[in-house]
Amino acid sequence: MKVLFNSEILEKSEVTIDMEDRGYQFGDGVYEVVNVYNGIAFTLVEHVDRLYRSAEEIRLNIPIEREEVKQLIVRLINENSVKNGSIYLQITRGVAPRKHQYDSKIKPLLIAYPLPFSDVSDVQQQGVKAITAEDLRWLRCDIKSLNLLYNIMIKQEAHEQGAYEAILLRDGQVTEGSSSNIFIVKDDTIYTHPANNYILNGITRIKLLQLFHQKEWKIKEQPVSKQFLLNADEVFLTSTTNEVVPITMIDEVKINDGKPGSFTRKIQQAFTELVKEEIRG
Amino acid sequence: MKVLFNSEILEKSEVTIDMEDRGYQFGDGVYEVVNVYNGIAFTLVEHVDRLYRSAEEIRLNIPIEREEVKQLIVRLINENSVKNGSIYLQITRGVAPRKHQYDSKIKPLLIAYPLPFSDVSDVQQQGVKAITAEDLRWLRCDIKSLNLLYNIMIKQEAHEQGAYEAILLRDGQVTEGSSSNIFIVKDDTIYTHPANNYILNGITRIKLLQLFHQKEWKIKEQPVSKQFLLNADEVFLTSTTNEVVPITMIDEVKINDGKPGSFTRKIQQAFTELVKEEIRG
Repeated sequence: MKVLFNSEILEKSEVTIDMEDRGYQFGDGVYEVVNVYNGIAFTLVEHVDRLYRSAEEIRLNIPIEREEVKQLIVRLINENSVKNGSIYLQITRGVAPRKHQYDSKIKPLLIAYPLPFSDVSDVQQQGVKAITAEDLRWLRCDIKSLNLLYNIMIKQEAHEQGAYEAILLRDGQVTEGSSSNIFIVKDDTIYTHPANNYILNGITRIKLLQLFHQKEWKIKEQPVSKQFLLNADEVFLTSTTNEVVPITMIDEVKINDGKPGSFTRKIQQAFTELVKEEIRG
Repeated sequence: MKVLFNSEILEKSEVTIDMEDRGYQFGDGVYEVVNVYNGIAFTLVEHVDRLYRSAEEIRLNIPIEREEVKQLIVRLINENSVKNGSIYLQITRGVAPRKHQYDSKIKPLLIAYPLPFSDVSDVQQQGVKAITAEDLRWLRCDIKSLNLLYNIMIKQEAHEQGAYEAILLRDGQVTEGSSSNIFIVKDDTIYTHPANNYILNGITRIKLLQLFHQKEWKIKEQPVSKQFLLNADEVFLTSTTNEVVPITMIDEVKINDGKPGSFTRKIQQAFTELVKEEIRG
């Protein structure tokens, strides 16, 4: 496997991280996951823009130009002959003797590499179970940072309960999943939490909202209660690697009689077409 | 420099971290900083116990016995000939292909090494300036985890404003500093936030509270407002490496006329005696 290490492409065996990398000691960094369809990075511009936005929010200056990052990702995909799969990229503030404050001379470290293809066609087809859990994360969830401890704790909890995702509730309102955005369909209206500091504004979420607007489907970007969630007509999650996955059971309560709903199917199809168009273009 | 790497002591140059270490990608780990006085690790038992407690809370099974960890730390101190300084130790869940959920077969990685001695006698003597800031951290601040992004963001903010520490306020109440506990003296009573999920229960904090009880000084473990803080007779911060440091100015408001107070001086002296006794014993 080839790994992007700042502006170089190295063999994985050549890549080592310093124990004093601030990413390792503080989670001082940000990341992205980009999907690859047929050898092409989907919504690469949006992902790279969000990486820069997250970095800016934590005041990490990425020393490489956006254009170069995009070119390097494309080169990484080609050198690894990735056809379908995804690229993980993260940037950390770099190596410095451990102390909380940092100086601007520290050189950030960008790494990127392909994640193995994970086949989600079954879950997309059949739907998944989710649990609900309290959202105990920090109040800057809009930053896609490496501080993912609560996300992994609650994802683990979900998996141990035989569920695929945990739907988080802050003050009784649905925010998002541990690694996905959540959409709720009720009476032909699609609800999702507004993109503020309580959620990570997924690229799939953004693309879908654009699509819904185009199609003139009714959308309400507002939080809903757990009760509303459990009484929904349909619920689905979205993420880069999952695309659109129906949620058919939440906390042992069946949604749409435990089957993926027709609205969700329509959205899955529309998203597949969108990917095809963008990749073709 | 010698570094503890699981149960081995290696040269720093031999230590490399895998980019798929979950500490690097998720901040999936916990840590401690232990002070060394005259070659002896102060409150080592308490720090190692807290490391295990934090690990347990994130369901990370430390594969080494407590007793062995303590012995390894002592060996590390000796092999590095640390006289005065501190030891940083962290344990991460280990290396696995990136995904949120984990399986129990992953082998955790413990590393520890000496941090350079940082002379805090000047700040202890003269006192420091602090700023106040909103506490945006997660709701499990009782876990000493590697998810320190907000702590470093706000510590950086403090430093850029010429301050030494940021005092955090959640819902208008003082919780703690970005890397310290906060004590407020008013009318001969010492106030500090109770040890719950909103703060990290510092070992120095615990030791001081025991001392205050012994001396029958009046203590109230309860949160106080920003107004109360700014009107305090004296304010001080505590941490492993800072011990007891007077805060003489907060957000441009002078505390005790901008000078370290007599109560704080008494506490500094008592702490120094405590260290001397424990190290001697």
